[in-house]
Amino acid sequence: MTDIRLDLNTDMGEGYGPWQLGDDLSLLPVLSSVNVACGYHAGDAEIMARTVSAANAAGVDIGAHIGLPDRIGFGRRRIALDGERFASHVLYQFGALHALAAAAGSRVTHASFHGALGDMACEDETLAMSLIGAIAAFDRRVIISTSPGTMIMRAAHRHGLESIGIFSADRGYAADGRLVSRRQPGAVLRNPDDVARRIRRFIADGVVDTVDGRAVAMPAQTVMIHGDTPNAVDIARAIRDAVQAAGGSIVPISRLNAGTPGGPPHV
Amino acid sequence: MTDIRLDLNTDMGEGYGPWQLGDDLSLLPVLSSVNVACGYHAGDAEIMARTVSAANAAGVDIGAHIGLPDRIGFGRRRIALDGERFASHVLYQFGALHALAAAAGSRVTHASFHGALGDMACEDETLAMSLIGAIAAFDRRVIISTSPGTMIMRAAHRHGLESIGIFSADRGYAADGRLVSRRQPGAVLRNPDDVARRIRRFIADGVVDTVDGRAVAMPAQTVMIHGDTPNAVDIARAIRDAVQAAGGSIVPISRLNAGTPGGPPHV
Amino acid sequence: MTDIRLDLNTDMGEGYGPWQLGDDLSLLPVLSSVNVACGYHAGDAEIMARTVSAANAAGVDIGAHIGLPDRIGFGRRRIALDGERFASHVLYQFGALHALAAAAGSRVTHASFHGALGDMACEDETLAMSLIGAIAAFDRRVIISTSPGTMIMRAAHRHGLESIGIFSADRGYAADGRLVSRRQPGAVLRNPDDVARRIRRFIADGVVDTVDGRAVAMPAQTVMIHGDTPNAVDIARAIRDAVQAAGGSIVPISRLNAGTPGGPPHV
Amino acid sequence: MTDIRLDLNTDMGEGYGPWQLGDDLSLLPVLSSVNVACGYHAGDAEIMARTVSAANAAGVDIGAHIGLPDRIGFGRRRIALDGERFASHVLYQFGALHALAAAAGSRVTHASFHGALGDMACEDETLAMSLIGAIAAFDRRVIISTSPGTMIMRAAHRHGLESIGIFSADRGYAADGRLVSRRQPGAVLRNPDDVARRIRRFIADGVVDTVDGRAVAMPAQTVMIHGDTPNAVDIARAIRDAVQAAGGSIVPISRLNAGTPGGPPHV
Repeated sequence: MTDIRLDLNTDMGEGYGPWQLGDDLSLLPVLSSVNVACGYHAGDAEIMARTVSAANAAGVDIGAHIGLPDRIGFGRRRIALDGERFASHVLYQFGALHALAAAAGSRVTHASFHGALGDMACEDETLAMSLIGAIAAFDRRVIISTSPGTMIMRAAHRHGLESIGIFSADRGYAADGRLVSRRQPGAVLRNPDDVARRIRRFIADGVVDTVDGRAVAMPAQTVMIHGDTPNAVDIARAIRDAVQAAGGSIVPISRLNAGTPGGPPHV
Repeated sequence: MTDIRLDLNTDMGEGYGPWQLGDDLSLLPVLSSVNVACGYHAGDAEIMARTVSAANAAGVDIGAHIGLPDRIGFGRRRIALDGERFASHVLYQFGALHALAAAAGSRVTHASFHGALGDMACEDETLAMSLIGAIAAFDRRVIISTSPGTMIMRAAHRHGLESIGIFSADRGYAADGRLVSRRQPGAVLRNPDDVARRIRRFIADGVVDTVDGRAVAMPAQTVMIHGDTPNAVDIARAIRDAVQAAGGSIVPISRLNAGTPGGPPHV
Repeated sequence: MTDIRLDLNTDMGEGYGPWQLGDDLSLLPVLSSVNVACGYHAGDAEIMARTVSAANAAGVDIGAHIGLPDRIGFGRRRIALDGERFASHVLYQFGALHALAAAAGSRVTHASFHGALGDMACEDETLAMSLIGAIAAFDRRVIISTSPGTMIMRAAHRHGLESIGIFSADRGYAADGRLVSRRQPGAVLRNPDDVARRIRRFIADGVVDTVDGRAVAMPAQTVMIHGDTPNAVDIARAIRDAVQAAGGSIVPISRLNAGTPGGPPHV
Repeated sequence: MTDIRLDLNTDMGEGYGPWQLGDDLSLLPVLSSVNVACGYHAGDAEIMARTVSAANAAGVDIGAHIGLPDRIGFGRRRIALDGERFASHVLYQFGALHALAAAAGSRVTHASFHGALGDMACEDETLAMSLIGAIAAFDRRVIISTSPGTMIMRAAHRHGLESIGIFSADRGYAADGRLVSRRQPGAVLRNPDDVARRIRRFIADGVVDTVDGRAVAMPAQTVMIHGDTPNAVDIARAIRDAVQAAGGSIVPISRLNAGTPGGPPHV
């Protein structure tokens, strides 16, 4: 079981103006890609530029983390939007990050949808088709990362974009393969050893153990952690160590499948 | 005196959400390029997308009209910003329009600075260098349009970008080559015949007559009108007719000097 | 059937920064009260101050038109908000208008909820209780205007605030007493004679004829028109004339029931 | 030298949506008043409501901290605004906080101007008159706190409002009585003992020692600290202890001079 490659990423640049969230920069050396907030739910041009610059220095892939226009709600409140009209807002956010990355000698390799926008698009194929269609019309090389088995993944496939499943290594899963609500016990794993155990299980069997004692298939290649956990750096290191101990490697999302048989065997 | 080519343009897409300004679409067939507000002082992703689509249909060049983050003041109030930090906001706005244009099969050919941002950058070389530098780092083909003789023009030259002088055909000029304040008499020309007379004078002699009876050199190739004048379409037609009657032609800004000796002889 | 008093009102101050909507000022002399946008879905402090000043000059009651924080969607898109938390935003908007009115020697007599916020609160008693509770905690004299029979009306009653039913005289009604969607035929009445006929019917019988030929009870005392109709002034005059011809009078909302048996007999 | 009363305050509620600044709540028991950001440069309705509630629980006076509409610049960038028009924005902010405070059974006792708005108004009497005039038109009991000797203080006097001088106990002063720029050495005092020594000097002699070894008169009654210093609680306690050791007391700003000869003898 050779050639296990996984991407290790987090959301980044989620501050706004004078305000910060998470411990962004210390995480970068341990990661292989980041998802950068694009100014709607969080982030602004200056924070995006600083994040791009730091990501470039760390050799980490830059993705667009596209959200709803709702800073006060941090993009977590559903808005009854029109998908076709919102496609322009996807391009607006993506293009803004694209220009900042290109001016810094880099590029945006992937995209994902934040919070309630992601939740809605995971369930609603029409919406997912509009959002992904916007990106596909701009750049067909963009990789879409999303939870496995969602309408976003299906829409990426239909638009001919590569998609990569996300495994949220520090979050509890239910038997239906969804994340457990943050209010429930087991929703957040804070112990690096627990997270490492999950990574070993994931690599060995392609599954994640759920909060109710089952196991669900996890067809994912990008391992995601949350930067707002105080010991996020320890968790990221534990994941990296577990992957390497299993003979695998952490590589940026754009190189996971590039010209290789690639991916864990079970994906 | 052959091969007179002039661009005819206006600012467009200056609405926001449910609000509109000016009579955008009826002007398009008469113009050769537009400057599209990019969401800071005016405009939003949906308006930008609609403007791009209409501009493409009319065969008109699309430019980025970059402004200050001040919708209530419509970008007309000076903000004491840091030029180096604001460079990221220039890229943010430009990139957003770039993606919308590219996804629609088009591209952003030129850029200009709106309102107080333009006023500040015309006077402040350091600021102008930061703003233009941001654009140059992203795309060296972008043409900068600005009032002749300003620090913006100088900065474009230093960054190796083509720059084109703007002649505001429906606005009064003072003896120093600046526009007269909107509150003064003669600030706005509303009669198409008056504007046509200026165009003939400009083509014949390369000058504009000022409100105090002098004439100042006008080294410009893009003729600008303001869409918020009720008879803007009549004024635009009068300009087009005057140019053609003088043996010249109206061409999009990106084709003014492309591979030709180009430009009016006096520029 | 003496002492018929009706309020005649419209939404006002729905511009933002340099942008305007509707023909605000010409309507004022014909009305008896207005609902002023408070800066969330539309309006800003300067527009609010100008609207307050004009309303005071016209002797018209000033109400707070409270909306969702969504200028691009003009407050018409539902947002999955937490009612208890949004209560603070109701107070924020109401208080802002209160200070502008008080500084101008006036006061905010009534409040209503705009667009999707109103739609949600009309259906959701918990939300309606939170929104009305916020206002009641600040000023128990505030009158709540809303469509008859909604959860907003019920919540006003439970909080001990006076509530007044709205009759949208220029909008089509369905048999269930709701407004017909703007996309359906008969949704908007543009002919002043048609609107006047409805007013006569309403005064005589307390009902409105629906788009499908029935009649529904209309227990309302405030007659609302929409300022964005081109001939809104003509429609307002037709209503005023019809009320007076029936022996009734148009009075500001705060004086409809003040110390009188008040109201049309059927309410 | 009996009856020394000083107010001890800080700026509070300077977060926005999901973002926080400073260690707000732990400071409250040590203070006697707070200045609450009102949603322009920082703060939002929910944060304001939580701050009001906590301030009420701590028995601390609530003031409006009024700023420029510039979240990205945290209100620290000058905007070339029109003072008369901005008066509406002062009322908007003040009124929003007023309603939140009144609904919680409290009231707004004082007001001050944040960042660049304060800097501009301290220098520009016309601007200061507009800003203070707005508040005076709403509530003549509001106390204005500002640096001693500024145009804001003068405008408060001309409008008949009480004004109170601010002594920034943890900031370095220059010989002209102004605060030293944050970039210069000695700009911020982080040692509680140093701050306590200044308080003793201030009480004894009515002066503050400047960074260049002089002493300037400090006709102030409100002692201000900055909540973003890590040991702000220690500094606040050191001030309180020093005041009490000198026989004085810390009282909310609204009770400093209420019905008493009041104030330190040198003011």
